[in-house]
Amino acid sequence: MEKVRVVKIGGNIIDNEDRLRSFVELLAVIPGKKVLIHGGGKLATSLAQQMGIPQQMVEGRRITDAATIKIVTMVYAGYINKNIVAILQAHGNNALGITGADLNCISAHKRPLKNGIDYGYVGDITDTQDKKVWQDLLEMGWLPVVAPLSHDGKGQLLNVNADTVAQETARMLSRYYDVDLFYLFEKPGVLRDVADDNSVIDRITLASFKVLKEDNIIADGMLPKLENAFEAIQSGVKSVRIGIAEALPDLIEGTAGTQIVYG
Amino acid sequence: MEKVRVVKIGGNIIDNEDRLRSFVELLAVIPGKKVLIHGGGKLATSLAQQMGIPQQMVEGRRITDAATIKIVTMVYAGYINKNIVAILQAHGNNALGITGADLNCISAHKRPLKNGIDYGYVGDITDTQDKKVWQDLLEMGWLPVVAPLSHDGKGQLLNVNADTVAQETARMLSRYYDVDLFYLFEKPGVLRDVADDNSVIDRITLASFKVLKEDNIIADGMLPKLENAFEAIQSGVKSVRIGIAEALPDLIEGTAGTQIVYG
Repeated sequence: MEKVRVVKIGGNIIDNEDRLRSFVELLAVIPGKKVLIHGGGKLATSLAQQMGIPQQMVEGRRITDAATIKIVTMVYAGYINKNIVAILQAHGNNALGITGADLNCISAHKRPLKNGIDYGYVGDITDTQDKKVWQDLLEMGWLPVVAPLSHDGKGQLLNVNADTVAQETARMLSRYYDVDLFYLFEKPGVLRDVADDNSVIDRITLASFKVLKEDNIIADGMLPKLENAFEAIQSGVKSVRIGIAEALPDLIEGTAGTQIVYG
Repeated sequence: MEKVRVVKIGGNIIDNEDRLRSFVELLAVIPGKKVLIHGGGKLATSLAQQMGIPQQMVEGRRITDAATIKIVTMVYAGYINKNIVAILQAHGNNALGITGADLNCISAHKRPLKNGIDYGYVGDITDTQDKKVWQDLLEMGWLPVVAPLSHDGKGQLLNVNADTVAQETARMLSRYYDVDLFYLFEKPGVLRDVADDNSVIDRITLASFKVLKEDNIIADGMLPKLENAFEAIQSGVKSVRIGIAEALPDLIEGTAGTQIVYG
């Protein structure tokens, strides 16, 4: 089967215009079929502050109210997404910026109440879907650039998790292609010591993941990222690698970052 | 040849959430191939005010500086575009929200200085282009929803005129289809007396347009709209009609609005 590289870019890279541009230019020269999923960064929060819209937090999680879904739609699907598209086009990549609502390529539903908390316009991605449209887009020679938004099929946009979008997209594509999935951010990989960039764990298996969790070496934001990675591997994605955006060529070569291995 | 309806929606309709939703629902039930181009409305101006970004006007025209292109990208390509897409999807139309940068479907270039005035990140659409991608999108059964933005091919997004986007899209599609172009806004058509909604001019020919201009009956914002309409007709678009958004079914039947006729 033909290879497809699904690349998720997140973390501080999104907030740094120069770093984001350099990364996109790095992606542009990678040959072959590609999909880029981008996170939202902190731009939405700073725009909300600038507009005087208070951000409601419950147990450390942001509630996406009506004003906030408007802001994240503007920032993610507008500003970030279309600027990435313009840079890719300038480098000869035929990019198409989309959300899960466009072509209904990723279905979602409003997150149900958890412990009585209504997260507002936050969506959970429907995980049993199989959309042929992903193959259509790639066979046209296009490079989908996906913002972390979807819809409920009833006209409402929803804020969704970009790591999960990447995982589900990679899963759907793995029916038709050999899919390599990359989770890129500002760290060189999964670290044994978060304060030490030289402590990259080269390889995590399902068994070692269990131990790393128990020893509290992997915690916080890295936990759901790795859970997404293992779900991807288990659902047919050929390889998953986590690392720093600037190392994309080395990550593709398999000489940098953290490799996620099933079993 | 198969029929395609290119519909441009602008004016106050964009600013009124209920009216925009009703219009989109009206469009959704029209059978056959369709393209929707939307304007920007006044939302960008109010967002700029809310963010404390001064709007620079020179001779009554807005200068699109770096802060303003960011705002219009957020509002046009993000908020307005994706909400329309979500509503269309909810009504079974497989909408795809794009700008001219996406798939490089509309090429533009920065507007050259006029009388020494630099309009900033404003684009003029390159009028000799012929993009097969429009046919590709329609043959996939998709409904392109186009925001009035494009790019210079060097990584810079540009603010472009939505009426011109509609005209150029209709022109490009007229090589492959019988194209009907509709310019929709909050007025029932081109009015003989702007204060009287019952003074709709049923039909304007190139000859009568000349007289209407000389008599100052057609002036201001209606002038470029009609010039776009005549350019469309002269470049192979089969029919152009101008009218109120809510009358879309009657405009399609040819029983409402102003018809633009060549000759």
